Amino acid sequence: MKKLRRSGRLVDMTNYLLQHPHSLISLTYFSERYQSAKSSISEDLAIIKDIFESQKIGSLLTVAGASGGVKYIPVVNEEEAKGNIEALCKQLADQERLLPGGYLYMMDIIGNPHLMNQVGRLFAAMFSNKKVDVVMTVATKGIPLAYAVGTYLDVPVRIVRRDHQVTEGSIVSINYVSGSTKRMQTMSLAKRSLQPGSNVLIIDDFMKAGGTIRGMMDLLEEFQANVAGIGVLVEAEDVEERLVDEFISITKLSEVDVKEKKIKVETGNFFEKLAEMTEVKQ
Amino acid sequence: MKKLRRSGRLVDMTNYLLQHPHSLISLTYFSERYQSAKSSISEDLAIIKDIFESQKIGSLLTVAGASGGVKYIPVVNEEEAKGNIEALCKQLADQERLLPGGYLYMMDIIGNPHLMNQVGRLFAAMFSNKKVDVVMTVATKGIPLAYAVGTYLDVPVRIVRRDHQVTEGSIVSINYVSGSTKRMQTMSLAKRSLQPGSNVLIIDDFMKAGGTIRGMMDLLEEFQANVAGIGVLVEAEDVEERLVDEFISITKLSEVDVKEKKIKVETGNFFEKLAEMTEVKQ
Repeated sequence: MKKLRRSGRLVDMTNYLLQHPHSLISLTYFSERYQSAKSSISEDLAIIKDIFESQKIGSLLTVAGASGGVKYIPVVNEEEAKGNIEALCKQLADQERLLPGGYLYMMDIIGNPHLMNQVGRLFAAMFSNKKVDVVMTVATKGIPLAYAVGTYLDVPVRIVRRDHQVTEGSIVSINYVSGSTKRMQTMSLAKRSLQPGSNVLIIDDFMKAGGTIRGMMDLLEEFQANVAGIGVLVEAEDVEERLVDEFISITKLSEVDVKEKKIKVETGNFFEKLAEMTEVKQ
Repeated sequence: MKKLRRSGRLVDMTNYLLQHPHSLISLTYFSERYQSAKSSISEDLAIIKDIFESQKIGSLLTVAGASGGVKYIPVVNEEEAKGNIEALCKQLADQERLLPGGYLYMMDIIGNPHLMNQVGRLFAAMFSNKKVDVVMTVATKGIPLAYAVGTYLDVPVRIVRRDHQVTEGSIVSINYVSGSTKRMQTMSLAKRSLQPGSNVLIIDDFMKAGGTIRGMMDLLEEFQANVAGIGVLVEAEDVEERLVDEFISITKLSEVDVKEKKIKVETGNFFEKLAEMTEVKQ
């Protein structure tokens, strides 16, 4: 790579850091990449840190010492997040998405990669100080959000299947009762895909009674893995008995009236949970 | 937002552009964002363009006129891509992933968001000059790659289901014959999720005879939509009769010997197809 001036280095380093969230990058790496002195690289990083933090792009942690370097951690830009979530609530409340049986058409939202990345970034930022080794979701609609979270946390994703037809070697299956329909169902995960002791962040698109998520928690127990947290895109409020206590929701479906064709959606508990987690940190 | 100096603007603009591939961003937007003259913004963009292009991050198109602005288009860094694909081939050839029946365990690869984003970027870069309105895949394992492609092309993703149990309103279903097992199967897509005339890039993780992809092509016909292209992560070579002629593959499984526990993997036709497409452009 040819020698770059400061302006060029700033552009290239910004790209490099954004492509490698949560990775420790040594000063030596950048110094060799740009054929520049470490002192110049340190000055570049100070500029990037200043902008990343003032613009709420993320924080830039400096790790001192021989094996030291710099690490980019995505953060929550609360103001931007509020705007995005409010826009999402409005979009969800569109009566056109109401389907027979009170289901909501969601593919326009879940099928929007930009939106999924925005929301995934929020969960990743929230869990950036927690130990998360793996993001887990269940097929099908939770997958896009789970990958967005995995991208920003730089951890692998595991997909639980709702059947036995898994061509992935020996599998662990459990039965669970879907909370809303009360039907007995099966979910499976390939045995070799999760190490015992892993800390797992469970992500899904929708939670009503929480039967599916409860199922994933039971499955994690079979793997002797731990629940690091639970995050859902949409929480349905109108539930007799919830099977999951502790979770984070981006939006809350507070009313679905099929007859009147009315959907009421509000912001979930995300910001309350964010405040709690920030308090604990201080 | 407070007034930023050039160094700060370069960092923030780089982030902004990377977050908005294929979006036209007006000079006015940046000029207001940084309270800076358009002439300064133009100079900033010239620096970013120079680095994006020399580092093969992407090209920066300038659109002149009143409604003009700048657009970031991801490109293929061939050298980097070759290294990444070779590493992937090596990873795929690991005999530990061989399962009974000649299946391969793939969740470690498909479950790696960073890798999926790398490969998705390749497909997106390759199709950046073609008209793609939607990326389509079939549940489950093609979803991560499809979203990576959708992210870099900034287009929505649609997920075809292998069952009728779709709670998404009225659906269009077709029967198709899985090429390798010769079994009759069903795939469905919500009717409202795809507009007639859409140009659809089909993405999947694995193609053997191509029955599933043929099925998706037939489904597109029902929607009066067009196939813009077909991309797969792994192509299996040992096939009697292929049901799909024109496709792009990242890797090619040229031999799976269950008895000898041997897997042979080579680079797919990606670079040949890339050369063809580049020729046509010139």
